[in-house]
Amino acid sequence: MARKNCLVAQSGGPTAAINASLAGVIEEVLKSPETERIYGALNGIQGVIRDDLMDLTAVFAGCPERLEQLKVTPAMYLGSCRYRLDKDLSHPDYERIFRIFEKYDIGYVFYIGGNDSMDTVLKLSEYAARYEIPVKVMGIPKTIDNDLDGMDHTPGFGSAAKYIATSMREISYDTAIYNTRSIVVVEIMGRNAGWLTASAALARNSTNTAPQLIYLPEVDFSIDQFVKDVAYYAERDEHVLIAVSEGIHDKEGNYISAQSAQVDQFGHVMLSGAGKFLEGVIANRFGCKVRSVELNVLQRSAGHSTSAADLEEAAALGRYGVAAALAGKTGEMAVLTRTSNTPYTVSYGTYPIEQVANREKKVPRAWINAAGNDVTEEMLAYLTPLVAGTVQVPEQNGLPDYLPVSHLYPANRK
Amino acid sequence: MARKNCLVAQSGGPTAAINASLAGVIEEVLKSPETERIYGALNGIQGVIRDDLMDLTAVFAGCPERLEQLKVTPAMYLGSCRYRLDKDLSHPDYERIFRIFEKYDIGYVFYIGGNDSMDTVLKLSEYAARYEIPVKVMGIPKTIDNDLDGMDHTPGFGSAAKYIATSMREISYDTAIYNTRSIVVVEIMGRNAGWLTASAALARNSTNTAPQLIYLPEVDFSIDQFVKDVAYYAERDEHVLIAVSEGIHDKEGNYISAQSAQVDQFGHVMLSGAGKFLEGVIANRFGCKVRSVELNVLQRSAGHSTSAADLEEAAALGRYGVAAALAGKTGEMAVLTRTSNTPYTVSYGTYPIEQVANREKKVPRAWINAAGNDVTEEMLAYLTPLVAGTVQVPEQNGLPDYLPVSHLYPANRK
Repeated sequence: MARKNCLVAQSGGPTAAINASLAGVIEEVLKSPETERIYGALNGIQGVIRDDLMDLTAVFAGCPERLEQLKVTPAMYLGSCRYRLDKDLSHPDYERIFRIFEKYDIGYVFYIGGNDSMDTVLKLSEYAARYEIPVKVMGIPKTIDNDLDGMDHTPGFGSAAKYIATSMREISYDTAIYNTRSIVVVEIMGRNAGWLTASAALARNSTNTAPQLIYLPEVDFSIDQFVKDVAYYAERDEHVLIAVSEGIHDKEGNYISAQSAQVDQFGHVMLSGAGKFLEGVIANRFGCKVRSVELNVLQRSAGHSTSAADLEEAAALGRYGVAAALAGKTGEMAVLTRTSNTPYTVSYGTYPIEQVANREKKVPRAWINAAGNDVTEEMLAYLTPLVAGTVQVPEQNGLPDYLPVSHLYPANRK
Repeated sequence: MARKNCLVAQSGGPTAAINASLAGVIEEVLKSPETERIYGALNGIQGVIRDDLMDLTAVFAGCPERLEQLKVTPAMYLGSCRYRLDKDLSHPDYERIFRIFEKYDIGYVFYIGGNDSMDTVLKLSEYAARYEIPVKVMGIPKTIDNDLDGMDHTPGFGSAAKYIATSMREISYDTAIYNTRSIVVVEIMGRNAGWLTASAALARNSTNTAPQLIYLPEVDFSIDQFVKDVAYYAERDEHVLIAVSEGIHDKEGNYISAQSAQVDQFGHVMLSGAGKFLEGVIANRFGCKVRSVELNVLQRSAGHSTSAADLEEAAALGRYGVAAALAGKTGEMAVLTRTSNTPYTVSYGTYPIEQVANREKKVPRAWINAAGNDVTEEMLAYLTPLVAGTVQVPEQNGLPDYLPVSHLYPANRK
């Protein structure tokens, strides 16, 4: 007899949309007659190994408003891990994991994550195939970095892009207020892929030309050329806003951030960011007011400023992944394809995990201008639909009323 | 015959509500039969000295929707300055300024700003009194720091508090995802007054205890005690979120930020923040995952996340200031008084500038707990109504559609 229960987990870094995918998975499982209960593993695959499961049917069945609240809650309701399963399928982790699946009568596993998490999906599906265990394993994508192969864009990216573009527009207003020269460098996440940094370009409109300069990690960074670029816009505009990826590096591959170091009270060296380093370069060369801003973790966790398009797609991918697994698919990842840009439409499907895991999709060179200091119109056309629409978050005393995650604190753990 | 025209300017640091006060001023002037045109001086009092005025009647008369857009636009539509008028009223600036007032038939001046800006209001009103010039000068308050004497709280503070509390709640979700110890230090603006840092406490609710620790500049900071405080919560909660003011200092008055320095590529020393410094302290003492976040300029310029209560009050203070000046008042500042906390109500009035200018209102010691690492219930009761209500910002392609400020860029200046 087929196993009836489902297990879902989240892994990798947080996004503002990953809980929408979780809600999509739960929603679809709850309404499918082929399934019974759905369990959530706390802290990804580690929660399975530790037998630390949460009964999600008990929490969400019959509570559609709680599922809606889950969709707008940022970060990860089930917690996360950065645990990599061993290459060798005879490692004891696998036997332990599949014993837990058997204990809870798990027939379907949904693993929501990025590149590294898809490696877990690949290995679990290989193990199940090798030992003919009746467990379907489906990957549900997420990553703010937008670097997953096999799909047009990833859930979580649109909300991060919207937060970045909104913040850049607001910083450009903040930068323009004095009639003296002022330069601001904003450091944006994405060490190897420049998608997030590129989204800073959305801050521009017919009257706002900031950010004037955008540097992605796909192009080698030259400090001399940077100084020339800044000099041009400082002369033209006085107020200059610059977006740089945290991962910009010179042509030898050395990170720009590694060239600046902070010494703490004990004399230990702490690495500072690329933005802070370039702040120093500008202060020295231009002698004007200069500031660096790191958007930091809010890029990925700002639930109060998400893209409606992104959250809808994230939930739809969760639902689609469940339907595909129930239809017998395994070792695949739910993906979306952009079928049209105007009007913007997408279709859903699945993609073989072995073609996704451990690969990175970078920004094509053709979407970066020749000078390597801006993005092209094609990039803007690609990005624009992904930040569309505002999500209303329920409020409590003027602040976003997110679903509690107190079960992630030790006092409430098994 | 009485002079008919009005002049308005903005000065000091930006806030997300200062343009709402500007809109209130314009609104009230446009509907008052006693006045004719309203001019905006670009970059505060410097714009008057340079004769750099903008005809606001031409921009806003008959365009109520444009005034509404101005209310939600962050930073400063008229630009700002940090210019301090000379103590000596015989300084040539004064004659120049009052000649410009005469040229434009200015009878009423509205100056929107904080402590230092009120000093400008004081001096202009003294000069007008001394030479019996028929110009009324009215201060309109603003500052995210909430440190102005003579009023319950300042416009701009509520929106900044809401942004900080929302961000802290989101960072607490981001911090809790791994089942390993993680500590985050968030550095918040307010060098001498801890009001903004205190607002981090609003992030808590019945299920969220983060931030567990809050350090204001009103209490001397001890690194040894800090390490003990962090150790307690790291043991209890694993995930610890800490709010610190940028201005925390030891009992000798030395800023904690000054104890950490970054050396740039040229060997120059750049000061780093208190948060970055404490990140180093925690990394050394606890050896766990630790991160520091600086909320930076978005605290004051995040127009996408403002408090409806704040924006309403900011506009009302602008309108009230105009009515008071037309009624003959001068050398005063429009203020608000909290008349009740439940339900929250305020009343408007004016306050003599000489009792406001150059003073700072700090957090009372009684609103900080005995250990100096948290705020009290009184503080929470004070803060809660100030962040109430959400403001809908018009959108364009998924981003906030703010009123253009391209007139602040050199290509479009006189």
